[in-house]
Amino acid sequence: MLRSFIEVWPDSHFPIQNLPYGVFRPKRGGEGRVGVAIGEYILDLSVIDDAGLLADTAAGGKGIFHQSSLNAFMALGKSTWTEVRRRLQQLLSADEPTLRDHVKLREAALLRQTDVQMLLPAQIGDYTDFYASKEHATNVGIMFRGKENALMPNWTHLPVGYHGRASSVVLSGTDVRRPKGQMKAPDEAIPHFGACRQLDFELEMGWFIGPGNPREEPISVKNAEDHIFGLVLVNDWSARDIQSWEYQPLGPFLAKNFATSISPWVVPLAALEPFRVAGPRQEPEPLPYLQTPDKAAFDIRLEVHLRGSRMEEPERIATSNFRHLYWSMSQQIAHHTVTGCNLRPGDLLASGTISGPEKESRGCMLELGWRGTEPIELGKGEKRAWLEDGDQVVMTGWCQGDGYRIGFGEVTGCVMPALD
Amino acid sequence: MLRSFIEVWPDSHFPIQNLPYGVFRPKRGGEGRVGVAIGEYILDLSVIDDAGLLADTAAGGKGIFHQSSLNAFMALGKSTWTEVRRRLQQLLSADEPTLRDHVKLREAALLRQTDVQMLLPAQIGDYTDFYASKEHATNVGIMFRGKENALMPNWTHLPVGYHGRASSVVLSGTDVRRPKGQMKAPDEAIPHFGACRQLDFELEMGWFIGPGNPREEPISVKNAEDHIFGLVLVNDWSARDIQSWEYQPLGPFLAKNFATSISPWVVPLAALEPFRVAGPRQEPEPLPYLQTPDKAAFDIRLEVHLRGSRMEEPERIATSNFRHLYWSMSQQIAHHTVTGCNLRPGDLLASGTISGPEKESRGCMLELGWRGTEPIELGKGEKRAWLEDGDQVVMTGWCQGDGYRIGFGEVTGCVMPALD
Repeated sequence: MLRSFIEVWPDSHFPIQNLPYGVFRPKRGGEGRVGVAIGEYILDLSVIDDAGLLADTAAGGKGIFHQSSLNAFMALGKSTWTEVRRRLQQLLSADEPTLRDHVKLREAALLRQTDVQMLLPAQIGDYTDFYASKEHATNVGIMFRGKENALMPNWTHLPVGYHGRASSVVLSGTDVRRPKGQMKAPDEAIPHFGACRQLDFELEMGWFIGPGNPREEPISVKNAEDHIFGLVLVNDWSARDIQSWEYQPLGPFLAKNFATSISPWVVPLAALEPFRVAGPRQEPEPLPYLQTPDKAAFDIRLEVHLRGSRMEEPERIATSNFRHLYWSMSQQIAHHTVTGCNLRPGDLLASGTISGPEKESRGCMLELGWRGTEPIELGKGEKRAWLEDGDQVVMTGWCQGDGYRIGFGEVTGCVMPALD
Repeated sequence: MLRSFIEVWPDSHFPIQNLPYGVFRPKRGGEGRVGVAIGEYILDLSVIDDAGLLADTAAGGKGIFHQSSLNAFMALGKSTWTEVRRRLQQLLSADEPTLRDHVKLREAALLRQTDVQMLLPAQIGDYTDFYASKEHATNVGIMFRGKENALMPNWTHLPVGYHGRASSVVLSGTDVRRPKGQMKAPDEAIPHFGACRQLDFELEMGWFIGPGNPREEPISVKNAEDHIFGLVLVNDWSARDIQSWEYQPLGPFLAKNFATSISPWVVPLAALEPFRVAGPRQEPEPLPYLQTPDKAAFDIRLEVHLRGSRMEEPERIATSNFRHLYWSMSQQIAHHTVTGCNLRPGDLLASGTISGPEKESRGCMLELGWRGTEPIELGKGEKRAWLEDGDQVVMTGWCQGDGYRIGFGEVTGCVMPALD
């Protein structure tokens, strides 16, 4: 097994098999630049590139890693990503002296993750959110529309999605203010304005688009993965009481536009290749433009932890898996572009809440607490129907290899009280 | 009345009282830059700024007009826009010799509009589309959901909106390819894939955001107009057969993401001030966060013309007015941000289809042809239930002053056949 000269614990999310990309600024000063995570360190690619060590790749020597977003690198496409990844794995490997034995270069290029501030990995042009988990769509449908209308007739024929808000995508660690808005409970005669009382998280995964497509040239489902740069964890914060009043007929708007949190490290699709699996059986068979090969899903374990302000430790409240998704990433991309809609490098697509078949695999409070009717029990008598002020939500995810993990780190956020 | 030394006909859209901003590139070569329209000319603001004529404004000497987008200028805010507008009106006025009598400068700074290529006026971060016309929402509701559920209970309490697609906003004159997609007619057992057969336009107006707001700091309805840089015409192309199958429960997605056309000239809100009027009476009274002063609407006449490939002349098929909008721009901005959602300079908000009370004031084919059941009659035996390949749609709009017009020019687009 490939090993790095940098010590990496078996449960680390960032072994040499992963090498996720991120954008960071050293705390000691300096501009934003691109790095990869390795164990508890970051390899500063702007330093590596300046040292000429990426000169034999199509990305080297162009200032691409000196930028405070990954967009330019994302745009270069799969063959360049492959070259760079291979080169970085070589440079970091235990047998390779170039970096290992060059003390000055090593000191300049390797920073502790605790010594940097992570930044948003990309300038997101458009953010699209799907609704690709059948279990989630079914559960929500039952609660909002009753059992008869739970899954709309279109749901098994196409990956339902909608445009989200790009401006309010924030980095993990950003506090999230409880939004105010207009809502109307079923027993109220008229709507009122106030702080959201049904604040929720949504456990999702997102993927960044690498090369986009020109307008009017759809991406075929067979080539769709070539357009995926890498994946992150996504918490699509939701205000359920605002949502249930506003969402008809044009979909969620204010209920979702106040914040969407993402994890800082973008895990390359190549790192997930060993964890490719078949997704759920699709019945009815999708139309030809949505037919993907057998194995279009990935086995990524996902967890949600919650820590209330009076709790000493976070408690795990949900475990799910990316493989539960009914519609694959490829299908979502093919569907998104089939009308000729253009994607651009740095666009973010997200899966929608990823719920699984079990009760504990439900990916949001709405489902876990069944719209407030079955609050979940935490330690020491704490209960939650919805998120409370001071609650910290931590999502994490990883692929379990033999003696190593391909991890996504965390996406975290703490709920702040509504403004007066 | 203020007059320019440049000849402007009374029915011109671009008298000295207007001075809309646009981004253009001279056909003879050169980079994109900012200009204002005056009669049949464009005043090149990069030349005016280089000549030091904007030095006494906060926008001068910073290269802001040498950019190929208006975002930087938009971000500067109302007091700077006022300064620049005053200065430009002075420079272009009949009594002012600075430009009028300086032949070399005049020749460098004034280009015929036929000698330039117009570009998208801004880099659009997020595009939001509302649904603010009561007549339109009612008509569509009747057709899609029946008379009983036509206007959803929330409609009269809040301006319904949704996030649109920013990447596919295109400039007037761009051809629009008939999209393909998945649809299911009510009498079909299963959906099929094919070219859209119910292609539509939507007559809308859009406004560009100037200074945005930080996340978590809503824009109050009273200050909302300070965040409006200016307005454009919008044609929000729609695929109705794709829409009716896909839109539940998360709203329109593919039906709208293939193209949205906008006019190139951004008319400053200040130019519309003389045409401020009261909007429709709002009943029930909106919640306090949505209460605007009496006159929050603007009297802007709007027309849609259609020219089929076999027609010699475009024919007018709809006349409407921006003042029909039930929800004002201010209300839409206040609502959009009330949860803390951040707007950014260059964001585009649009009104949704602007229909009026009369049959001929309906702003889309869906309404004009009553979902295909009452095709409209054009000259020489041509009929239209939906748009056909080769149809050119031309929208125009203006405020009629006493002897002058504040116009928006046109937004045009021609329907190209679907790809094989």
